[in-house]
Amino acid sequence: MADHVQQFASDNYAGICPEAWQAMQEANHGHEPAYGGDIWTARAADAFRALFETECEVFFAFNGTAANSLALASLCQSYHSVICSDAAHVETDECGAPEFFSNGSKLLAVPSSDGKLTPEDIRSLATRRNDIHFPKPRVVTITQPTETGQVYTVEEVKAISEVCRELNLRLHMDGARFANACASLGCSPADITWKAGVDVLCFGGTKNGMAVGEAIIFFDPKLAEDFDYRCKQAGQLASKMRYLSAPWVRLLSDGTWLRNGAHANACARRLAEQITGVPGLELYFKVEANAVFIKLSAAAEKALRERGWRFYTFIGGSARFMFSWDSSLERVDELAADLRAVAAESAALTAVAR
Amino acid sequence: MADHVQQFASDNYAGICPEAWQAMQEANHGHEPAYGGDIWTARAADAFRALFETECEVFFAFNGTAANSLALASLCQSYHSVICSDAAHVETDECGAPEFFSNGSKLLAVPSSDGKLTPEDIRSLATRRNDIHFPKPRVVTITQPTETGQVYTVEEVKAISEVCRELNLRLHMDGARFANACASLGCSPADITWKAGVDVLCFGGTKNGMAVGEAIIFFDPKLAEDFDYRCKQAGQLASKMRYLSAPWVRLLSDGTWLRNGAHANACARRLAEQITGVPGLELYFKVEANAVFIKLSAAAEKALRERGWRFYTFIGGSARFMFSWDSSLERVDELAADLRAVAAESAALTAVAR
Amino acid sequence: MADHVQQFASDNYAGICPEAWQAMQEANHGHEPAYGGDIWTARAADAFRALFETECEVFFAFNGTAANSLALASLCQSYHSVICSDAAHVETDECGAPEFFSNGSKLLAVPSSDGKLTPEDIRSLATRRNDIHFPKPRVVTITQPTETGQVYTVEEVKAISEVCRELNLRLHMDGARFANACASLGCSPADITWKAGVDVLCFGGTKNGMAVGEAIIFFDPKLAEDFDYRCKQAGQLASKMRYLSAPWVRLLSDGTWLRNGAHANACARRLAEQITGVPGLELYFKVEANAVFIKLSAAAEKALRERGWRFYTFIGGSARFMFSWDSSLERVDELAADLRAVAAESAALTAVAR
Amino acid sequence: MADHVQQFASDNYAGICPEAWQAMQEANHGHEPAYGGDIWTARAADAFRALFETECEVFFAFNGTAANSLALASLCQSYHSVICSDAAHVETDECGAPEFFSNGSKLLAVPSSDGKLTPEDIRSLATRRNDIHFPKPRVVTITQPTETGQVYTVEEVKAISEVCRELNLRLHMDGARFANACASLGCSPADITWKAGVDVLCFGGTKNGMAVGEAIIFFDPKLAEDFDYRCKQAGQLASKMRYLSAPWVRLLSDGTWLRNGAHANACARRLAEQITGVPGLELYFKVEANAVFIKLSAAAEKALRERGWRFYTFIGGSARFMFSWDSSLERVDELAADLRAVAAESAALTAVAR
Repeated sequence: MADHVQQFASDNYAGICPEAWQAMQEANHGHEPAYGGDIWTARAADAFRALFETECEVFFAFNGTAANSLALASLCQSYHSVICSDAAHVETDECGAPEFFSNGSKLLAVPSSDGKLTPEDIRSLATRRNDIHFPKPRVVTITQPTETGQVYTVEEVKAISEVCRELNLRLHMDGARFANACASLGCSPADITWKAGVDVLCFGGTKNGMAVGEAIIFFDPKLAEDFDYRCKQAGQLASKMRYLSAPWVRLLSDGTWLRNGAHANACARRLAEQITGVPGLELYFKVEANAVFIKLSAAAEKALRERGWRFYTFIGGSARFMFSWDSSLERVDELAADLRAVAAESAALTAVAR
Repeated sequence: MADHVQQFASDNYAGICPEAWQAMQEANHGHEPAYGGDIWTARAADAFRALFETECEVFFAFNGTAANSLALASLCQSYHSVICSDAAHVETDECGAPEFFSNGSKLLAVPSSDGKLTPEDIRSLATRRNDIHFPKPRVVTITQPTETGQVYTVEEVKAISEVCRELNLRLHMDGARFANACASLGCSPADITWKAGVDVLCFGGTKNGMAVGEAIIFFDPKLAEDFDYRCKQAGQLASKMRYLSAPWVRLLSDGTWLRNGAHANACARRLAEQITGVPGLELYFKVEANAVFIKLSAAAEKALRERGWRFYTFIGGSARFMFSWDSSLERVDELAADLRAVAAESAALTAVAR
Repeated sequence: MADHVQQFASDNYAGICPEAWQAMQEANHGHEPAYGGDIWTARAADAFRALFETECEVFFAFNGTAANSLALASLCQSYHSVICSDAAHVETDECGAPEFFSNGSKLLAVPSSDGKLTPEDIRSLATRRNDIHFPKPRVVTITQPTETGQVYTVEEVKAISEVCRELNLRLHMDGARFANACASLGCSPADITWKAGVDVLCFGGTKNGMAVGEAIIFFDPKLAEDFDYRCKQAGQLASKMRYLSAPWVRLLSDGTWLRNGAHANACARRLAEQITGVPGLELYFKVEANAVFIKLSAAAEKALRERGWRFYTFIGGSARFMFSWDSSLERVDELAADLRAVAAESAALTAVAR
Repeated sequence: MADHVQQFASDNYAGICPEAWQAMQEANHGHEPAYGGDIWTARAADAFRALFETECEVFFAFNGTAANSLALASLCQSYHSVICSDAAHVETDECGAPEFFSNGSKLLAVPSSDGKLTPEDIRSLATRRNDIHFPKPRVVTITQPTETGQVYTVEEVKAISEVCRELNLRLHMDGARFANACASLGCSPADITWKAGVDVLCFGGTKNGMAVGEAIIFFDPKLAEDFDYRCKQAGQLASKMRYLSAPWVRLLSDGTWLRNGAHANACARRLAEQITGVPGLELYFKVEANAVFIKLSAAAEKALRERGWRFYTFIGGSARFMFSWDSSLERVDELAADLRAVAAESAALTAVAR
């Protein structure tokens, strides 16, 4: 059943944005060579090179699970390990895909109160063991923005990449919502990636408004050797590639990618602003991208659901709201109003109970 | 560069058919739960159950390589082997994907003059070794229609499945062009699959006119246990699943799937009829689906390319022409005319040379 | 450099016990069919069936890492997960072998203060997630005795297997030091394994006094289907199998296996008794098998090393001493005396410092 | 049942040679650090470096299947392929282990009449496909001596390695019977390996007279990076490593390795000489190492079995006889006499039947 009223349970509940749709429509004329031999795929790769201001190597995969897993597998062997936050999507929500694609690389999840990795975390974990009885740390993966809706600053990424270089670790960035991070930071894509020491970026298209498709970007071309074979073998080479690549051409070239991210971020900020300081509504994490996590009483949470709102509570029991390219500001305001209302009711109830 | 004139090099050079496009457009309204929790995915599964007249289990994958590999991996362990024709796509064109997804299952490719497996081939190979130093045969895979454009009859599939049952082998059907086979046979999808003893079918959507997406159909629900986890881990679970599933709802329910297949087959027959008996043009395989393989002299082949035609010659050196849902009958006739012309020229040249 | 004075750093520093040596010598006459077709391997399997009083299926692997990993891989698929203690050898000291052999199964390590799993731990972890975005729990593995030198009672194993049955989980026992557990419990091997609900046991030969070799015992023969192929493919089928199997025949039939375990346990108890109640020497875990973990001050630890003792401190910073079939009681007493001495010195030093 | 009369069905039916046994016995005193930290393992590695006159990296695995598979896996990724002869042990008798350890690398088996690969074979196969739909050739493996008992000359190996260098392929040598090859060629181990362009050698200990154990030798240390982790993860790191390494120290330092190989070769030659020219007994392959393949009539084969001889007939239907370090010359002569007798009987019978 399609939602008749918009929900903010997840940003992949949204459909295809008009620009991506038009791009697919334009690409849908006549015949094109398959498997990326079409004109759109070449243009999309060029558009990424222009955006990142460097001669990066660009590949496309169907979804984020595959993009992350293939990228990580290309950076390590089965007896290596990958350092990540314990909130990382690769650890919590990809059903062991990184382990599968790499044939057994172990994820070393750092307990983290806010979902962010620090240089100290990495150093501590990477140097804890140095015997062959435990998988050798080889890669660090950070999510930008994090699953908790926070953004690593350029300085933070640089500090992480420095410790990576020192310890001979590669740095991967899971950018399922990379556009939101760029919109939030106001920096260039180059600044927050290769100029800050990132080796490989997975740049999310699906959550940015496309039907399907993520880009995997190698800033060091040597790391991309034979990666096309890797994608093909892993069932990630689209025959009608143009439908994955044409939307990228459009979104990157006319700024839609950034506008979509900025809009979703603005919705999150708008919600945050309307509830900040309201008794009974605590922001669980800083709001820096398109997610808002709110700590509610059980009663308030229940009341909010009864008002028809759908949301997840998987991180720390807080209610998560995610905004997308098509989130309606009116609905954001309705949510804010309902949040304030249930918080007030809950407070009144508690006062009576005393 | 998009082709301004239509080519018949491959049937995945074609775009999205109008019905699939409309279905995506209809699905592109508002928000839908992700990962197959949407209304279209449920309807698509039901449409398959109606089409196959049985309570099959239905899953969706992004492409045929993944669909075949996941299906095969679910039927065997790493130390098992898969019997296939040496012309099978899983053997020749999936870059070792079946071995990768199964963590090492060996493909046992039967040399075949025409791309078809026979019960005798299977029996011979499956009983050749029975020691633990060689992977134990566990699955047979047949392509319907074959990569050579031929169709297994219901009787042929039954004969194969009988030997499979006898030898404790599972039967998988790679139906990347399953619609073409059904259109050619004029039989029901049930007759040529589970009623004939097929355990799992990969039903191709991409070559049938969709943007992306194949269906994996388990006729024995027990074999489908936890297959949803398998798809997720292998990076084959679409978040915006509706764009994969909605086209199936439409194509299966209004008969487009079969019409598209029938049209492509008709183009192949039309070409075959126009060149049958022409000196210097030999049909390399029987034309039973949407492919025509023509044995040409080197001179004729060269001349044909000079007339602007593009085609592959990978099987037995014959020129392959593949037709799709949008192949133009006029272009087919142009091809036939050019074929006759280059054959005549080549014959004249040879006569002179004598 | 061979130790001229015996150390208790690890129980695999010991050599081959006389009985195992003699068995190899006896087997080393003339020719024998390879790959387990010899007479010793058949006898060894029978000896296990006699010992466990059941028609179990028996296989041999070269080491414990392989035995555990192959057993776990046979119980789950790549998208499943394995519940273990965070002190489990499979998690901490097998370099990701379980993930490698299973092609990606995730280990879910339960934080444990003492290295033991409880039914509550299992239930909690197994029911925490039930969506396809996280690997489905399918197996529980317990180490008997644990890496902390403690033994699960028959009742404890039964309680664990009950929750396993309820939650559709298989139960694997890592018995790298299984003989020590049996000697400690004084129960029959059957009682603590299949009668208590264990599905598969890895029974350690190396730490029991052999050169190389572990047995993998399936109490449910259905679970052992094609396991011989699995071993072969994974490089775990010995060609001259008799040298792995003949020692088992001897050790199982004349009681050496149990005597060796009992001796090592007795050494551990002897050490524990001599230091119990000594100020500054705290037993970190209950001493129930062949390991003693002692919490020492840093000064005492340093002083002990200066007296020439070698030991590891990887669990909780406590000093670990492991005893084997050939541990010398005199050396145990020397260790006890040195421990008391360094504790007294350390206490004196601390008193002065005050 | 142990054979009371010696058979020549396989060279791994033999036991442990006296020198290897003594080495194990010497090593079986007191305690030694585990996992290769002992004195014997260091000495064994040094002995290999002395033998090969180069600073090679040396590792030990339990058996040849694992040694070959780990070596190949270290040379390629899952989407690469390995070129081998269709008679190669990795293709025919390792149950898909190379595919398993490499997570899916495809073996490309070249049909070969005599089991040897040629530079032309390699070039032809390696250049046949260069698209991403087929695994990219990355390694060539040759067996020295071949499974058919023939030896590659230094010139042949050099010619193969030259085409490998040209085509960016790595060269692996399966030396399960490497000692027999060296004894046959009369060249130094260095000449036939790294000086001829071999990257990695698996040097067989088991068939050379040991209980268990093969050495993996990397002539280019860069290729050995983290190979110790690979062995550990794959269950191939022995805890009591001294029992694998001490025999190598002895056999390499006192020339036993070569004497054992030479003896087995001499037995093969002795048999070959006694049957050469005998009507009805045709040598199927040149006898250059420790194997003799004899083409017999069905009647002669049956008669030979009735005289109590055991042998395999898996290559071309010829009877294979393999000799080992302990083969008895008297038994060789008995075999020769019986072969001549059954050939004569068979000829007489055929004459009568005419």
